[in-house]
Amino acid sequence: MEDRVSVGLLGVGVVGSGVISLIEKHQAKLAHQLGCGVHVKSALVRNPEKARSVDAKVNGTTLTTNPDDVLNDPEIDVIVEVMGGIEEARESILKAFASKKHVVTANKDLVALHGAELHEVAGGNKCDFYYEASVAGGIPILRGITDGFASDHIEQLMGIVNGTTNYILTKMHNEGVLFDDALKEAQALGFAEADPTADVEGLDAARKMAILGRLAFSTYIDLEDVEITGINGIELADLQYGDSLGFTMKLIGFATFDGKQVEVNVQPALISKEHPLADVKNEYNAVYVYGEAVGEAMFYGAGAGSMPTAAAVISDVITVIKNMHRGVTGSQFVEPRFKKELKPADQRFGQYYVRLHAKDEAGVFSRISSLFNEYDISFKQILQSPAKETNAAEIVVITHHASLEMMHQALDYLDYLDEVIDIKSFYKVEGDADA
Amino acid sequence: MEDRVSVGLLGVGVVGSGVISLIEKHQAKLAHQLGCGVHVKSALVRNPEKARSVDAKVNGTTLTTNPDDVLNDPEIDVIVEVMGGIEEARESILKAFASKKHVVTANKDLVALHGAELHEVAGGNKCDFYYEASVAGGIPILRGITDGFASDHIEQLMGIVNGTTNYILTKMHNEGVLFDDALKEAQALGFAEADPTADVEGLDAARKMAILGRLAFSTYIDLEDVEITGINGIELADLQYGDSLGFTMKLIGFATFDGKQVEVNVQPALISKEHPLADVKNEYNAVYVYGEAVGEAMFYGAGAGSMPTAAAVISDVITVIKNMHRGVTGSQFVEPRFKKELKPADQRFGQYYVRLHAKDEAGVFSRISSLFNEYDISFKQILQSPAKETNAAEIVVITHHASLEMMHQALDYLDYLDEVIDIKSFYKVEGDADA
Repeated sequence: MEDRVSVGLLGVGVVGSGVISLIEKHQAKLAHQLGCGVHVKSALVRNPEKARSVDAKVNGTTLTTNPDDVLNDPEIDVIVEVMGGIEEARESILKAFASKKHVVTANKDLVALHGAELHEVAGGNKCDFYYEASVAGGIPILRGITDGFASDHIEQLMGIVNGTTNYILTKMHNEGVLFDDALKEAQALGFAEADPTADVEGLDAARKMAILGRLAFSTYIDLEDVEITGINGIELADLQYGDSLGFTMKLIGFATFDGKQVEVNVQPALISKEHPLADVKNEYNAVYVYGEAVGEAMFYGAGAGSMPTAAAVISDVITVIKNMHRGVTGSQFVEPRFKKELKPADQRFGQYYVRLHAKDEAGVFSRISSLFNEYDISFKQILQSPAKETNAAEIVVITHHASLEMMHQALDYLDYLDEVIDIKSFYKVEGDADA
Repeated sequence: MEDRVSVGLLGVGVVGSGVISLIEKHQAKLAHQLGCGVHVKSALVRNPEKARSVDAKVNGTTLTTNPDDVLNDPEIDVIVEVMGGIEEARESILKAFASKKHVVTANKDLVALHGAELHEVAGGNKCDFYYEASVAGGIPILRGITDGFASDHIEQLMGIVNGTTNYILTKMHNEGVLFDDALKEAQALGFAEADPTADVEGLDAARKMAILGRLAFSTYIDLEDVEITGINGIELADLQYGDSLGFTMKLIGFATFDGKQVEVNVQPALISKEHPLADVKNEYNAVYVYGEAVGEAMFYGAGAGSMPTAAAVISDVITVIKNMHRGVTGSQFVEPRFKKELKPADQRFGQYYVRLHAKDEAGVFSRISSLFNEYDISFKQILQSPAKETNAAEIVVITHHASLEMMHQALDYLDYLDEVIDIKSFYKVEGDADA
């Protein structure tokens, strides 16, 4: 057994700095658990002179701008990739596997797009490949799913896996501020990036759901299999109606598997206030898991940030070093058990929230209601109030369980009805208001 | 690699039946993960003729009343102990280790009392010893702590780890029923046992906190180190005052470690409604973890029940079989890193809730308030209303952070004051009402 395992770091940004300082701080704990020290020997950076929150040189880490100094150093056994981006990161990791180095990454974009390839190359080289930090930062959710639920059949995942959008929706819900203002505040506080597109449009959450779904259901899920609706321009009215009917608006990643077909999507949805996810506020993340045997479970915590993410990275490094000492690296990879089959819309059922403006005339609601009935859709909750336009009524309904395809057909037909002025919004609903 | 790993079961009660039926049901999944089958070869029972929810014989499991048929069978590699009780279970497990069999147990009483001994004997025999199901049933919290937080310093644990008491308190809180009535309903629904002593008096929660604390803090915590206050006879008035001040009453297991001293206790406490634990309702369990790097995290789910507990047991069996195939059994045991040192009362600080009856005379509140001030205790929230007795006032206060020892001294002194009729209740408070 070596005295000290050398780690090579790709990237010393927010997460990389956290990795250097946490490893330094926890030397005694690491030595106790592993029987050896852990040392970040060298780190790839674009600009060695840039000011950083951690002084790498003080910790004995050599900064370099040449990837080969890290990837070809025979003393380095474990590569930690926290530089972000896709193609450069992918090539670096493939190079690392080729020289039999184990890899830990926090890069969700990369794992969502190239996870299958990287797993296979890792396995072929008897290398470990872990990415706990890629989903929900400091929450050990990938371990929870793969080890904790190893004996169960996971039927459903629901995840609040994007802190930016959860912060925005919490702000809108609690303080009644508009979407644009909530986004600006999130940016000012550092919870949203200058270009918030990937967060607000749901792409970031979709990447995480693809990774979660793949592990939970043992089938390859590609990013393009994930249907995505973001929260861009979401209206306060819908949060407020939802609230008065017993629901909270959240951007939810849904993933279900019935043993044969999978469905993965990301969309804003109204969640019953009785549901554990409804209480997940601000920038926090949570993943709700429904297992056939275990029933409901939820994992909650910080989804991002330098230290939570770095802690998740290092927990993977610890696993890799334990595997090295036991001589069992590369054994974690198991071929997916199921061939992917996506669930078509006519097989997908749910409850739905619809808000529309209709002419305020006698018999209009009854005509709308019978139209829904023709599509086998009935209502669980109804709210009607005068709309701002003259002679118009604002109608909000929550349906009983209905087929998504029928729902779309009913909405298309409604749009043609003379009595209907405008369909304002349409959201998925999860749970009962007074369960 | 064997075609099939044989498991021996000690006990075919609620959990044991679940283990047999889940293993049978998930043969394909187990074979995919492990590359071999898993089979419950024989099971120790007291009465083979007793009716059971699972027909063991149909699944090819031989029932026996002789422990040696299971413990001395050379074909059996893994023993699952779900018979409960302490001395007989301990002896059976020691016998299993002596004949180099790995052990998985759901027995919290045993692990809380003899975990240290069993770990050492297991390690000495190169055997695995796992007990995920012993704490919070289907929630993979032990893995979460040991693997997920391996790189962090866990500062605090707070657990709702007893479903019976959480059900009773939820019932009292939501419906305003008295303790005795809530207990009877819990018994009728099967959430409380005929003799609810161990649950209601906090002993069951204490056992789980001793196990959690030991793993989180890497120090031996004995059951007698855990200070225990149950919820027996808890009064509705305190739940209602708590509610109106922004808090929910929960039976909480607290465990803290500052790097030197530990404190573990179980007590009913008023938790801010903003705290993630406040929303954990009915028979559900949750463990809140505060890590120095990760910050807040919470694991939520079913704390008991046949299937959730059996799923946790089998996840351990899967880990053991993977270790067997890799030839690394017995390597999980690490000597605790810290020598146990308990935190004395004068080093313990918290916020507290006090309800008392005082004479309804001019200046009484001000006298009580200055007495608290003499002990460095000041108030954050105050409620005063007429008590039922004539000429008495009911006073409820929530303090700012104060030393527990000072608190005790102040309460002792208050008791002697002429103006104070009776100190009705005293609870720990966690979090801010409007955080």
